Amino acid sequence: MAVEIERKFLVNSNEWRSLAPGTLYRQGYIPTNPDVTVRVRLVGEQGYLTIKTPLTAISKAEYEYPIPLSDAQSMIDSACKSLIVEKYRHKIPFGGLVWEVDEFIGQNAGLILAEVEIPTEDFAVELPNWNLQEVSGDRRYYNHYLAHHPFQTWKNYDSKQSCL
Amino acid sequence: MAVEIERKFLVNSNEWRSLAPGTLYRQGYIPTNPDVTVRVRLVGEQGYLTIKTPLTAISKAEYEYPIPLSDAQSMIDSACKSLIVEKYRHKIPFGGLVWEVDEFIGQNAGLILAEVEIPTEDFAVELPNWNLQEVSGDRRYYNHYLAHHPFQTWKNYDSKQSCL
Repeated sequence: MAVEIERKFLVNSNEWRSLAPGTLYRQGYIPTNPDVTVRVRLVGEQGYLTIKTPLTAISKAEYEYPIPLSDAQSMIDSACKSLIVEKYRHKIPFGGLVWEVDEFIGQNAGLILAEVEIPTEDFAVELPNWNLQEVSGDRRYYNHYLAHHPFQTWKNYDSKQSCL
Repeated sequence: MAVEIERKFLVNSNEWRSLAPGTLYRQGYIPTNPDVTVRVRLVGEQGYLTIKTPLTAISKAEYEYPIPLSDAQSMIDSACKSLIVEKYRHKIPFGGLVWEVDEFIGQNAGLILAEVEIPTEDFAVELPNWNLQEVSGDRRYYNHYLAHHPFQTWKNYDSKQSCL
């Protein structure tokens, strides 16, 4: 079990694009009560099964296990219903941390989120100049929420606070 | 992923007791939609994380992974709410198969179930003489159901079809 403390930002520029290539992430969610997440993820040829439980607004207990690719594929198809999120993840070193910029595709196309994992909740993060808007703790930007309520179905586009 | 085909029986005798010692199983369920099960199980010093999805009335797709004991303990405590089932499992070889006799404790005390895994749905099972009553496919006897509706809370004790 790891404790994951992270801050999350909407990205309103293109300046990060040249900094790292993207890798396709395909992930599904087993339907659960909203306070626990059971995620099945495919990254290249590797599968992962992850359980997350919230600790505070920006920290979670995370239990992640590598699983066979074929298990992950069939669980996404059989157990995750239509709760699927797909995105390209770009891992960009900046200010001594690794920023993960997620460019969503499919039903969440148009949304770009940057996440950075920090060692303590009050850690001073140096922000890159990507026109960021913090959304840490805003449940609408949880991938789990986006699986249930895809970005492209959000009604008030002006209030999306987004994106490119 | 394994396909698990099993038949399940209520046990209405004590004749199995001398045939194998019991091992304590403690397991919790992450709250999910009823058609998928996410189980965290402790058996001795080993933890397991298991996802089950139904295929037919008596067969399931089962994805099971060993996990650290401490992960299993903290997930049961933090993610499974009060959806806990505890039982002693007795593994008894009979008729070329291994029968698992589960003697429930706690909120499910009084219930004894025998399960046998079979290679095909129409496999001819030789039944031991334990005064068995088949309940294969009866969702009330799923451990997942018993976690939500413990045996001792069932209202009509006559209709329990049980036990010792």
